[in-house]
Amino acid sequence: MSEQAFTSMVAASSAGDAPEIGVGMLGYAFMGKAHSNAMKKLPYMIYPPVAIPKLAAIAGRNAAAVAEAAKRFGYRKAYTDWRAMIEDPDVQLLDNGGPNNLHAEPSILAAQWGKHVLCEKPLARNAEEAKAMWDAVEQAGVKHMTAFNYRFVPAVRMIRDLIDQGALGRIYHWRAVYLQEWIMPHYGTPMIWRLNRELAGSGALGDLGAHIIDLAHYLVGGVKSVSALTKTFIQQRDRDEGGAGVVDVDDAFAAAVEFENGAIGTLESTRFAAGRKNHNVFEINAERGSVRFNLERMNEAEVFWVDEQPQATQGFHNVLVSESHHPWWRHWWPQGHIIGWEHTFVHEINHLLEAIVNDQPVGPHGATFEDGYRCAVVCDAIVESSQSGRRVDIAY
Amino acid sequence: MSEQAFTSMVAASSAGDAPEIGVGMLGYAFMGKAHSNAMKKLPYMIYPPVAIPKLAAIAGRNAAAVAEAAKRFGYRKAYTDWRAMIEDPDVQLLDNGGPNNLHAEPSILAAQWGKHVLCEKPLARNAEEAKAMWDAVEQAGVKHMTAFNYRFVPAVRMIRDLIDQGALGRIYHWRAVYLQEWIMPHYGTPMIWRLNRELAGSGALGDLGAHIIDLAHYLVGGVKSVSALTKTFIQQRDRDEGGAGVVDVDDAFAAAVEFENGAIGTLESTRFAAGRKNHNVFEINAERGSVRFNLERMNEAEVFWVDEQPQATQGFHNVLVSESHHPWWRHWWPQGHIIGWEHTFVHEINHLLEAIVNDQPVGPHGATFEDGYRCAVVCDAIVESSQSGRRVDIAY
Amino acid sequence: MSEQAFTSMVAASSAGDAPEIGVGMLGYAFMGKAHSNAMKKLPYMIYPPVAIPKLAAIAGRNAAAVAEAAKRFGYRKAYTDWRAMIEDPDVQLLDNGGPNNLHAEPSILAAQWGKHVLCEKPLARNAEEAKAMWDAVEQAGVKHMTAFNYRFVPAVRMIRDLIDQGALGRIYHWRAVYLQEWIMPHYGTPMIWRLNRELAGSGALGDLGAHIIDLAHYLVGGVKSVSALTKTFIQQRDRDEGGAGVVDVDDAFAAAVEFENGAIGTLESTRFAAGRKNHNVFEINAERGSVRFNLERMNEAEVFWVDEQPQATQGFHNVLVSESHHPWWRHWWPQGHIIGWEHTFVHEINHLLEAIVNDQPVGPHGATFEDGYRCAVVCDAIVESSQSGRRVDIAY
Amino acid sequence: MSEQAFTSMVAASSAGDAPEIGVGMLGYAFMGKAHSNAMKKLPYMIYPPVAIPKLAAIAGRNAAAVAEAAKRFGYRKAYTDWRAMIEDPDVQLLDNGGPNNLHAEPSILAAQWGKHVLCEKPLARNAEEAKAMWDAVEQAGVKHMTAFNYRFVPAVRMIRDLIDQGALGRIYHWRAVYLQEWIMPHYGTPMIWRLNRELAGSGALGDLGAHIIDLAHYLVGGVKSVSALTKTFIQQRDRDEGGAGVVDVDDAFAAAVEFENGAIGTLESTRFAAGRKNHNVFEINAERGSVRFNLERMNEAEVFWVDEQPQATQGFHNVLVSESHHPWWRHWWPQGHIIGWEHTFVHEINHLLEAIVNDQPVGPHGATFEDGYRCAVVCDAIVESSQSGRRVDIAY
Repeated sequence: MSEQAFTSMVAASSAGDAPEIGVGMLGYAFMGKAHSNAMKKLPYMIYPPVAIPKLAAIAGRNAAAVAEAAKRFGYRKAYTDWRAMIEDPDVQLLDNGGPNNLHAEPSILAAQWGKHVLCEKPLARNAEEAKAMWDAVEQAGVKHMTAFNYRFVPAVRMIRDLIDQGALGRIYHWRAVYLQEWIMPHYGTPMIWRLNRELAGSGALGDLGAHIIDLAHYLVGGVKSVSALTKTFIQQRDRDEGGAGVVDVDDAFAAAVEFENGAIGTLESTRFAAGRKNHNVFEINAERGSVRFNLERMNEAEVFWVDEQPQATQGFHNVLVSESHHPWWRHWWPQGHIIGWEHTFVHEINHLLEAIVNDQPVGPHGATFEDGYRCAVVCDAIVESSQSGRRVDIAY
Repeated sequence: MSEQAFTSMVAASSAGDAPEIGVGMLGYAFMGKAHSNAMKKLPYMIYPPVAIPKLAAIAGRNAAAVAEAAKRFGYRKAYTDWRAMIEDPDVQLLDNGGPNNLHAEPSILAAQWGKHVLCEKPLARNAEEAKAMWDAVEQAGVKHMTAFNYRFVPAVRMIRDLIDQGALGRIYHWRAVYLQEWIMPHYGTPMIWRLNRELAGSGALGDLGAHIIDLAHYLVGGVKSVSALTKTFIQQRDRDEGGAGVVDVDDAFAAAVEFENGAIGTLESTRFAAGRKNHNVFEINAERGSVRFNLERMNEAEVFWVDEQPQATQGFHNVLVSESHHPWWRHWWPQGHIIGWEHTFVHEINHLLEAIVNDQPVGPHGATFEDGYRCAVVCDAIVESSQSGRRVDIAY
Repeated sequence: MSEQAFTSMVAASSAGDAPEIGVGMLGYAFMGKAHSNAMKKLPYMIYPPVAIPKLAAIAGRNAAAVAEAAKRFGYRKAYTDWRAMIEDPDVQLLDNGGPNNLHAEPSILAAQWGKHVLCEKPLARNAEEAKAMWDAVEQAGVKHMTAFNYRFVPAVRMIRDLIDQGALGRIYHWRAVYLQEWIMPHYGTPMIWRLNRELAGSGALGDLGAHIIDLAHYLVGGVKSVSALTKTFIQQRDRDEGGAGVVDVDDAFAAAVEFENGAIGTLESTRFAAGRKNHNVFEINAERGSVRFNLERMNEAEVFWVDEQPQATQGFHNVLVSESHHPWWRHWWPQGHIIGWEHTFVHEINHLLEAIVNDQPVGPHGATFEDGYRCAVVCDAIVESSQSGRRVDIAY
Repeated sequence: MSEQAFTSMVAASSAGDAPEIGVGMLGYAFMGKAHSNAMKKLPYMIYPPVAIPKLAAIAGRNAAAVAEAAKRFGYRKAYTDWRAMIEDPDVQLLDNGGPNNLHAEPSILAAQWGKHVLCEKPLARNAEEAKAMWDAVEQAGVKHMTAFNYRFVPAVRMIRDLIDQGALGRIYHWRAVYLQEWIMPHYGTPMIWRLNRELAGSGALGDLGAHIIDLAHYLVGGVKSVSALTKTFIQQRDRDEGGAGVVDVDDAFAAAVEFENGAIGTLESTRFAAGRKNHNVFEINAERGSVRFNLERMNEAEVFWVDEQPQATQGFHNVLVSESHHPWWRHWWPQGHIIGWEHTFVHEINHLLEAIVNDQPVGPHGATFEDGYRCAVVCDAIVESSQSGRRVDIAY
């Protein structure tokens, strides 16, 4: 190697002078994978990084599986006891990707130990549980975030910015569905934790509905009342381990809602929509225009302006939200070189790291535990309305 | 002219040996134009015709305007008194295209005179009025049809046929919106009859909602309950003649519904959806597949089958419903040479003429006055639920 | 009938005071049906009409069929000898909807008798024949039109208007395909006249390609050169009457073209595009924006503007070309109530009637025989280029 | 920390027992970022990994920039002399992401040193240069790949698999465009290396056209002839450093092509398509069906089958290519949770690593240097045809 040619030896482990924040990950399945990937990409894609997530530890019940996950993603330690992980001084941020029944206790414990908390959605199985979590993090003074990652889709943030700028004017309508199909009969889906109220809190409501309720909060504002139905199409399912289990959560719900600002809307989720893979679609109709978003085409937004000139060519614009001036896009690729679902987590976690490092609020663009609680209040009201047959007023 | 060349002299006024049915048209505006056009096209497009609508007379309040309409479309007589027209022996079929407050009385009178009746939708301003109309036509033994023309879109009929054949299996979800924008502030729409309860019965509900309620009835079946909201965004509007009028109908409604067969669904209509011109869209999710329809692309249907092979290429099909084997298409053009909104009336009126000539039932594919009544029952329940804040059970 | 009620007796045969123009229709199949329908609708839809097409006579080879067509559409006379029809003094306008080998002779004869001529496209089987036709009508001083009906789609005319206004600026690219599928093997299409050079002149080129060449002329301007290929995938087909016939026309062609104004483009047509029913799609990319059109969604246009504000929501607009301010739409229905393929003929024939009655030029918006000739020149050049393997310069 | 709780300490640097392959990256801009990201994600997403790319070194001209890139992505060494990097024994694989004029020399040198080579596309500035590169790697016996990453889009691979299985039958048509807009006047793009023939070889042709030529090779087969045009709309551009530069490459090209198997097609690329961000779209029409792909919606494919039952619902399927049974999807997320453009590089580089570790051929699914050469032959023929005005036969 010629002297002249050689430029520098660099420390591969360091991607800048940003502080490291030790992360303890609870869960190694779907969300564990998505969050771990985001934390690994963040330091070199959001560059220079505000902070570097140090994969300190991961926790899960199955010792072999958690060790394998640690090896796979590069976590330094692996725990089967999440309490121990939370107490580990190398952990400064708990990333709670466990099942819904493991959201409250670990998150509260982490807060008590002074750790920041990122918790997957729905924040809790009901509003009471969510309130306790919110109280705990507030009392502890730690940063807290509910992982409503769809706020971190560039198109969604662009829409929020348009609303904040007053470009849309008074909002008349919100219309949102979140449709999936994977527990339909032809899938042969067995009894799983997501179909059990004790473990999941609710069904499509908490899993999918929570997302669109949060988006409604984020983009339209507080909900005033809900008139709702829930439905369980298949009451009993086989267990993988033999025998049958009773499905005591909703397979679907539908709600007509009023907002505090006078808008009205609909919310609907189901896991029984044949052919709909991950169909999270919302539309806003407002005084100066309309917007529409479809998660399956998350790099696009549809936008209509009532004032546009020339009038002859007014119409819904198909906006490929991938320009350097669009939210977060300066970190990625040239226009039209689309990003995917996983990228929302990079934006989300980076947002939280910024809040931690700069001691900034997580809201309004990040969802806090308060936002997680508000979502739970609406979920509870939907269940109550379905049972009582009455419109339920929301008291957050 | 050479003898050999000349083939025949034909009577221009006769397009076949089909019987003529004298039509008396009430109204000469939007619906008068659409129905008149359909009746004029029918004899040479649905060929050979089952019957030929003879444009016997047209009635309207303004003498000059009705005379002009008669001249324009070729009605032989023009009346300013619809009662006289109905009594005219040349009129065998009353085509009632008047405003909603003129649906009941003329239709009932026509029935009493033994005339068949085609009445525009919504059949009446409320269920009670609709019931009286249905009773009258049934008692008179005349043919009766509510002009729910979207049953006569080829794609809609194809979807109904798939359901009848069992291809979709158990229906889980119905999801329908009918969105327009033409009374939004930027249109400057004044106070008009459609915004007055006395004249129109209801607002977006009866105008647009009636269509999607009827489609729900036609494609899914009876409604069990509704949980609904209505909303009036602008309570007062200027009158063209000066002064202001109070809008006492809904600008929009949203409802969560249960069906008798266990499906759940949503229904929503508004005239405040910026950029949505005539956006009547429904989706059905069922056990074996899903279907979706959008009136603005009425020559298309989207269809998904859960069993389709090869599995690798499953997806929503965009079906260009324009093949000779699709409903009514043998009467029109080669595939892909699309038809328009007005063609629904050709199919609809032809269906009624067939019922008259062959003494066949109008249902199940044509909407009868019973169907018009059932729609009105659901409309009334939506208003009641909005006012009471309770789920309202449907008793047709 | 009460005296007061009765308003007026009107002459059903007269829809206004407009002059009548006697039409002689040559052909009673696809185009005969489409043109007849348009002429019957025109007087009451384009109201008040500039002129009323009087269906004077129809001609065709089969006496029974032509008599039936006359009866169906209301033609007063039926001829088996088109010469006799042309000479009939009741005929002032020849509407030539015959096969391509019957375009020249009848059109020229009509011109010689001083009759106006509307001729279906392609105007002729080659440029030489087209030139003779153009010369004849010019010499006779009659009005002449080649039935390039897609100029009369509202979206297409809107695009032309944008270009004329300079809204698009310098054009860089033209990209057009016209794709169908109906002679593919799975259709079992036999040998028909459209596959025979003597009768048709060319295959997909003259049938489909002529349309997109004319649109290129109408929207971009003159073609400077073509570099092209043609292809016949199936050389021999069964005859319905037994035996096999040789296909001596193209099943498809593709061409790279230069325009006189410096733009470049592609042109392609085929009848071997599985699933493409009537897929006539073009796109223009220009200095200030782009436009795209798809005949199967002919009520829509896609438009992009480079200067649009706000920049954040730039994107292709989906314009539902159905507003009262869009071309011809004031004659039709409220926005979003779409029209169909057949409506192009109403606009087209009305345009010709206006030219006749007001002694106005047919161009630039209507295609004249000159335009039909120019199209034939490009078609011939495509065949020549395909055979010679050389770029062919266009000399109109 | 409880003993029981603690499971294991894991080496963060090791993601499995797979062999490490030392990578030397040439270039740190667009492609350097995309490839580096892919190599970092690969070991934990394609899990367990077949091999682990060890980011051994990165080279670039600017010392500060290359050091920064090394720090950012974790390359252990940074070079300003790519020769030195190639000779570095820690480098086993050269990843050549330099500008086109730096493709040949470093790739050949790497081969001579026995290093495997991944080279960005277009492989070379012309076929002669590409041939020399291909000869060098073949002679050296190293693995070689041209980075045609769109072969590694799941939808594209699915389409290739359908073709291989015979599902489409005989191919009649290929139709491909690759449209961008970023050198249009409103962008104010200055003179850059991509507009200089010495550095880039060609313009839109090599940059964008190479991709669709390779896809044509991959999906249809060898090209028999081309009839083409190229065009430079803006001949002179300002230099950032002052003064003006002459653009001596194409801004756009269009070609009509014949394939060896009898299919015909079109190829077109431009950087002057207003509103088209990264619009790489192809369509294949074949005997048993058609397929269509759009890179801007790369998680989708459109597929039509001529034999599909029921016939009533035939139509183009919109396939959301994101099921676990689709290519590579078992490594990613649940269905409908889409991936992005960058993921193609993960698949591509993993494919190369498999070839290296298992000593497997890179083709047919990976593009070799032979494929890069074949692409260059077609590019050269397009330029030649444009200049000569003649159809050019391809002799690979």
